[in-house]
Amino acid sequence: MATHSHVARLVLAYDGSGFHGWQVQPGGVRTVQGELVRRLQRLQGLPSIPPGAGRTDTGVHARGQVSTVPVSDAAGVDRIAQALPRMLPDDIAVREISCEPPDFHARFSARGRRYTYRILRGRDPLRRHDHLLHPGALDVDAMRASLASLLGLHDCTSFCRAASVDPGRMGCEIREARLEERGEALVFRIAADRFVHSMVRTVVGTLLEIGRGRRAPDAFGPILAARDRSAAGQTAPAHGLSLDHVEYDGDRGPNLLDPDPSLACDA
Amino acid sequence: MATHSHVARLVLAYDGSGFHGWQVQPGGVRTVQGELVRRLQRLQGLPSIPPGAGRTDTGVHARGQVSTVPVSDAAGVDRIAQALPRMLPDDIAVREISCEPPDFHARFSARGRRYTYRILRGRDPLRRHDHLLHPGALDVDAMRASLASLLGLHDCTSFCRAASVDPGRMGCEIREARLEERGEALVFRIAADRFVHSMVRTVVGTLLEIGRGRRAPDAFGPILAARDRSAAGQTAPAHGLSLDHVEYDGDRGPNLLDPDPSLACDA
Repeated sequence: MATHSHVARLVLAYDGSGFHGWQVQPGGVRTVQGELVRRLQRLQGLPSIPPGAGRTDTGVHARGQVSTVPVSDAAGVDRIAQALPRMLPDDIAVREISCEPPDFHARFSARGRRYTYRILRGRDPLRRHDHLLHPGALDVDAMRASLASLLGLHDCTSFCRAASVDPGRMGCEIREARLEERGEALVFRIAADRFVHSMVRTVVGTLLEIGRGRRAPDAFGPILAARDRSAAGQTAPAHGLSLDHVEYDGDRGPNLLDPDPSLACDA
Repeated sequence: MATHSHVARLVLAYDGSGFHGWQVQPGGVRTVQGELVRRLQRLQGLPSIPPGAGRTDTGVHARGQVSTVPVSDAAGVDRIAQALPRMLPDDIAVREISCEPPDFHARFSARGRRYTYRILRGRDPLRRHDHLLHPGALDVDAMRASLASLLGLHDCTSFCRAASVDPGRMGCEIREARLEERGEALVFRIAADRFVHSMVRTVVGTLLEIGRGRRAPDAFGPILAARDRSAAGQTAPAHGLSLDHVEYDGDRGPNLLDPDPSLACDA
């Protein structure tokens, strides 16, 4: 049985530029989880490390990372909602806080993740922090045509950083892979039940090679079949990538950061 | 008579965060114009300081600042187009370069300027560099209703930084003042023939007070009539502001940065 009665679910946005990724690391480098832990320890006095729904690497951003914090009573969620948002540095923001049942877990309860990768076909210094700047021409039709063969359940060894391959855990069900044009920007969206290490950046690096005409639009089928990282393209830079959404079964509690949440924790 | 035969017109975008404004200053602080001058001196060997269409203060961004560089022959414009974009640091970008007649001048030929001010009604660390973050509620209808009385020719002393008031030069013809909603963002656009010092930030500071219900939607009329800076609201922070467009009479030359400009300098 859980020793806590409720779980606070946090939806977080962060600018990954100033972090060595999400996960706490030895050696005191700055991480998002580390910043969070320090504030929660001050609030709760607990040494627990809140899990994240997805690990983001150094430089990767989030607009919808989810973390969960067990609390011993419902009022604990309200305390976090009232205090935590103002305690965080300006490169981390809490977008939502809700009260969930004790068995709700950011990572193990997640049913899917969605990432976006932003490419700017041009020069805009104001968007250089979260877009890959790519002034050269890209064949968007060829890039779009390539995406259909990504959909479905695949062994994604070819998209996994070689050092991270775990043969039993390479299956990913890709549910969405879309490329949207928004003026000079290209926004690539990909959703799956789970992702292997560096998967989105490897897919994007390959997609860019298709856009530049260096690979054919039907490249992804043979790459997946090869089950070999060297079959895919280069890993795209971290700063274009963002973890945008995490999906769970059922409904979540109301956002306690709304001016008047209709339901509080125990209502 | 001009000692130069052509003028290179540069359209510049920059992230104002790392600059003490546009204009070269004594003491060696980093400015956009200063960065430009150093590269142009290396290219041309000339000590001329290229003018800007609008001075931007410390922290203010640009997506369409215009500067002009006199050159002694048409090939000089091509040399700038080929070399300059790659010489600049990553917080300045050249968006366009065109060849113009020798009497074309970034500031004196300009017929109008358009600025935008971006407000984010929420928390997004990835947009904190170029949006004013304003999580509190704003009455957008009241803000919109207030804008009509800004349009037209006004003495704008009330919007001018007190230290910069020059009684003979306070007239501005405001041609556009619009507030657009884009999801969580509010984008305020204002266009005029000219602007007095800190004018947009003072208008926005006042507009925010209207949005918070601290001033009535008909506030701008009496503020303008007062011709007194203390009648208007606070100066909004610099980082939400961007100089987006400068207007000139007639057509400009083709952009030499396009892959295949249809017309070069002397064609």
